[in-house]
Amino acid sequence: MELGLVGLGRMGGNMRERIRGAGLTVVGFDHNQDISDATDLADMVGKLTATDQPKVVWVMVPVQAIDPVLTELAELLSEGDIVIDGGNSRWTDDIRRSELLSHKGIKFVDCGVSGGVWGLENGYALMCGGDDDIIETLMPIFTALKPEGEFGFVHAGKVGAGHFAKMVHNGIEYAIMQAYAEGFELLEAAEIVQNVPDTFDSWREGTVIRSWLLDLMVNALKEDTHLDKIRGYADDSGEGRWTVEAAIDHAVPVPAIAASLFARFASRQEDSPAMKAIAAMRNQFGGHAVKGAEDPSYATPPIKH
Amino acid sequence: MELGLVGLGRMGGNMRERIRGAGLTVVGFDHNQDISDATDLADMVGKLTATDQPKVVWVMVPVQAIDPVLTELAELLSEGDIVIDGGNSRWTDDIRRSELLSHKGIKFVDCGVSGGVWGLENGYALMCGGDDDIIETLMPIFTALKPEGEFGFVHAGKVGAGHFAKMVHNGIEYAIMQAYAEGFELLEAAEIVQNVPDTFDSWREGTVIRSWLLDLMVNALKEDTHLDKIRGYADDSGEGRWTVEAAIDHAVPVPAIAASLFARFASRQEDSPAMKAIAAMRNQFGGHAVKGAEDPSYATPPIKH
Amino acid sequence: MELGLVGLGRMGGNMRERIRGAGLTVVGFDHNQDISDATDLADMVGKLTATDQPKVVWVMVPVQAIDPVLTELAELLSEGDIVIDGGNSRWTDDIRRSELLSHKGIKFVDCGVSGGVWGLENGYALMCGGDDDIIETLMPIFTALKPEGEFGFVHAGKVGAGHFAKMVHNGIEYAIMQAYAEGFELLEAAEIVQNVPDTFDSWREGTVIRSWLLDLMVNALKEDTHLDKIRGYADDSGEGRWTVEAAIDHAVPVPAIAASLFARFASRQEDSPAMKAIAAMRNQFGGHAVKGAEDPSYATPPIKH
Amino acid sequence: MELGLVGLGRMGGNMRERIRGAGLTVVGFDHNQDISDATDLADMVGKLTATDQPKVVWVMVPVQAIDPVLTELAELLSEGDIVIDGGNSRWTDDIRRSELLSHKGIKFVDCGVSGGVWGLENGYALMCGGDDDIIETLMPIFTALKPEGEFGFVHAGKVGAGHFAKMVHNGIEYAIMQAYAEGFELLEAAEIVQNVPDTFDSWREGTVIRSWLLDLMVNALKEDTHLDKIRGYADDSGEGRWTVEAAIDHAVPVPAIAASLFARFASRQEDSPAMKAIAAMRNQFGGHAVKGAEDPSYATPPIKH
Repeated sequence: MELGLVGLGRMGGNMRERIRGAGLTVVGFDHNQDISDATDLADMVGKLTATDQPKVVWVMVPVQAIDPVLTELAELLSEGDIVIDGGNSRWTDDIRRSELLSHKGIKFVDCGVSGGVWGLENGYALMCGGDDDIIETLMPIFTALKPEGEFGFVHAGKVGAGHFAKMVHNGIEYAIMQAYAEGFELLEAAEIVQNVPDTFDSWREGTVIRSWLLDLMVNALKEDTHLDKIRGYADDSGEGRWTVEAAIDHAVPVPAIAASLFARFASRQEDSPAMKAIAAMRNQFGGHAVKGAEDPSYATPPIKH
Repeated sequence: MELGLVGLGRMGGNMRERIRGAGLTVVGFDHNQDISDATDLADMVGKLTATDQPKVVWVMVPVQAIDPVLTELAELLSEGDIVIDGGNSRWTDDIRRSELLSHKGIKFVDCGVSGGVWGLENGYALMCGGDDDIIETLMPIFTALKPEGEFGFVHAGKVGAGHFAKMVHNGIEYAIMQAYAEGFELLEAAEIVQNVPDTFDSWREGTVIRSWLLDLMVNALKEDTHLDKIRGYADDSGEGRWTVEAAIDHAVPVPAIAASLFARFASRQEDSPAMKAIAAMRNQFGGHAVKGAEDPSYATPPIKH
Repeated sequence: MELGLVGLGRMGGNMRERIRGAGLTVVGFDHNQDISDATDLADMVGKLTATDQPKVVWVMVPVQAIDPVLTELAELLSEGDIVIDGGNSRWTDDIRRSELLSHKGIKFVDCGVSGGVWGLENGYALMCGGDDDIIETLMPIFTALKPEGEFGFVHAGKVGAGHFAKMVHNGIEYAIMQAYAEGFELLEAAEIVQNVPDTFDSWREGTVIRSWLLDLMVNALKEDTHLDKIRGYADDSGEGRWTVEAAIDHAVPVPAIAASLFARFASRQEDSPAMKAIAAMRNQFGGHAVKGAEDPSYATPPIKH
Repeated sequence: MELGLVGLGRMGGNMRERIRGAGLTVVGFDHNQDISDATDLADMVGKLTATDQPKVVWVMVPVQAIDPVLTELAELLSEGDIVIDGGNSRWTDDIRRSELLSHKGIKFVDCGVSGGVWGLENGYALMCGGDDDIIETLMPIFTALKPEGEFGFVHAGKVGAGHFAKMVHNGIEYAIMQAYAEGFELLEAAEIVQNVPDTFDSWREGTVIRSWLLDLMVNALKEDTHLDKIRGYADDSGEGRWTVEAAIDHAVPVPAIAASLFARFASRQEDSPAMKAIAAMRNQFGGHAVKGAEDPSYATPPIKH
């Protein structure tokens, strides 16, 4: 089986390697010609020459590049060909894009991909949405990418279901990370447990909370016992936000996931406007001292109004 | 009626003035002799000479000073005399202290006091706990302190009930302040509403959210439109913590009050250990760049393990 | 000045009365002919005959009816005429609707209205978005509706700003209500404070948490001391959801408002699917007894796997 | 090596079996004589006859039984003997108990035990607090109980550190379970993902969120696809509460763990007093219909005041 693969960054590059390792043919395209197998998208499509299968193109590009790539692919592909979006797309965009391509008879599959830098070695978990027959056609590719064993792949439903499942996966991920993070902070603050990294390490077997994220937390603590070398600054890539928004759409309470998202927002603020308001109100009613913005150590005298 | 008043700081000093303004006799004591009416506690008690009432002493001192003062008063007072704790005591301490004094037949009343720097002029809201007859005896003092009109005083129950009511009052206060603070931050961030102070000001009549705290928020915004001069740093004085702890004791969910308390904790951190852990885990699984602790603008390159 | 007023329900009907009370001319239209001043929208517009002002139509209809009404008004009105949407619209819809009407030269103003059933007597708080000159033209109407005194009206910014300000107002409202609600539940659960309604009543003067919502809470407690006659079931009308979504768009942490929204979601569930999952996992790892869905009192025996 | 083991319930009974399986001698005592190796505590201690070691007694009883057992053991044991509390004790109690026993020269070790019904087969994770030499003496017992391999045991620090570590472990556990639970509820509500159990199953390899709790969640879903047979009712065993309280003591924000705890509290309420208050206030200001307590489907008519 052969496929085109658009985007050969950290994820796409490793995926090309893993698919090739399984014996499939990959024609990769990237704007970086040093790593690209084709000069442009047209060249890539032209090099897909198998006559016993539809042309298949896996798109693995940043969110903002997906629509331009799909627009161009719509011109280059033909009825019956298949496009897979493996990026971090919002599931609502999948439905729109699927309809766009369907005007030319091109099939669309959305595929949420998890695994990060470990995927090349361990395999990528795949959550796919699309029609049964199309998913069936693509199984050799999914099998090449997914981990060995019985887990790591699900055909979650129609178009959009793959990215929806991946979105929920990431929402869950936010809250699990927050759980370990809160536990870490409490252990560090209490100073009763004398060896926090060893405690996390001990939890890796026999406990209720053993997990892959725990293993990673232990790796990080072994490198930097108190995480002194790292700032408490966490980006978010969209899925956490979409999870909370989807929950709101369906009136589902998600307090732990929302708390995790808000903690990331707060981590990126130099100062909190909300807490400025709290400090200002406290000063107004109680004459509580406030700290001036300029000098962190300077407390303005209580002001009575 | 006459009373001794121990502690003439920001609260106690104003309370002395308000009680005297109502025609009662106050013998105040403070370690600062410039403002004290007595040289020590014994002198203060000695100056309580009314023969038609028990000796009454109102204690208005910082939390850590209450027990020493009560211990000394237990020596100086006699059976039937009354001690009122008007400080920010935890209600569980009231019960202990009441028992201590009862060994000598001294009566104890706990009184939560709200009003801050505005109390001298507007009156202090009082939440009292103690026996009916003792509260009855003290009503001239409470009447002097409380606001005019029908509100501002409650005999909440037995000893401890006053500080419990005050504790819950403050827990509610935390969450109301957080409500306005979150609204403020959102209005500032969205930049759609062009005049945030005017918007808050408009809410002072006709809306569902009009309140005294809103008035104070408007005062603060009129002085400093974007609160540029103030840091987002908020202390907590104990009652918020006790409220959440009491809620946990009674299995009562208090998500908004707890969120408000945690926001204050976070406001006082230079960096968040929990978010360091989040950043460390993200780096481990995704090769996500982390920010170094030293230089806020420096992002270490993705590390693959 | 004269205006058309579409929608004479609980809000619109009272607003007609208040505007007329201020001496303005109102031609109201409602599908309920018993209360309508016109047979249909065309009739209503036809009855606007003042020659010294543009035609002005205030739309006060349920959210789902706004677009059909605006579409019909676009046919009936002319260049320079003005439409005001006073409903609970999402601010993003304002911008779309404003553009629609602008094709015919019709001006659009969005106006968030607060006040509920008390507005007829006390006045309605108004938060408006639109061009300066249009707002200026409409001031006699706003002045008729708003409370007396200096507060209760703001020209918040361009089109959309009015409903955005109202949305944030409601988000704040959710969290303030949650604050009192959590305090009420704790006081009821602890049973230390012997008279909860009196305690709330006492807070109405001199305290930091005095507010109009507190007054209403007291009213409710006076009618039904323990709220025995009411179910813990709370709808939400959209603004709370939009507030959290807007906060997410701007990366603003809103933990208290989100907690309040989630509490409402949970209040409407017969049983919590999330807590079923918690119970199921606990049973799996600890052999903790679970309760069967059929019989609330039936605990299935621990199951070991 | 030999030890006495007090309490042969679900945990203690399995632990006796596992320790014996490792070749150590266990004299178990339980009030249930059918499973007990001794008639009473004195008999149990009398049967500890090894002369080359101090007497060692592991206490594995419900929380309320620990103090009576320790009091009796204090009479039966001698200087240099060792008592281990393996129950779900609060770490602050450890310190008190250790001091009590130290008056007779008896050594105390606290040991948090995780593993539930799976521990017999997989081993128990152990988190211990106590002096180095005592822990060293006890290592053969710990080695018998813990999982094979390098993980599952930590000497966390002085007395109290073991239960503190276990407490934090459980706090983390609460939030991780809540994470999966929220994801489950959202997937069920959205109905986009057509096979929720398969989706959870797929996550067991290659994803960021793979864990032992996920495996258990899959087990539960395979038995009962929509968890129809189980009620959304979750007890809590204390550690979650203590974690939040410890966090409050140290001013550590724990929003996700607290949210998880509050969700459990709410799951046990027939109706929410807080949401009654919300409904009551909404009715007061907006004439919003409320639901009567008696008949869930009955909405009282709007009331205007």
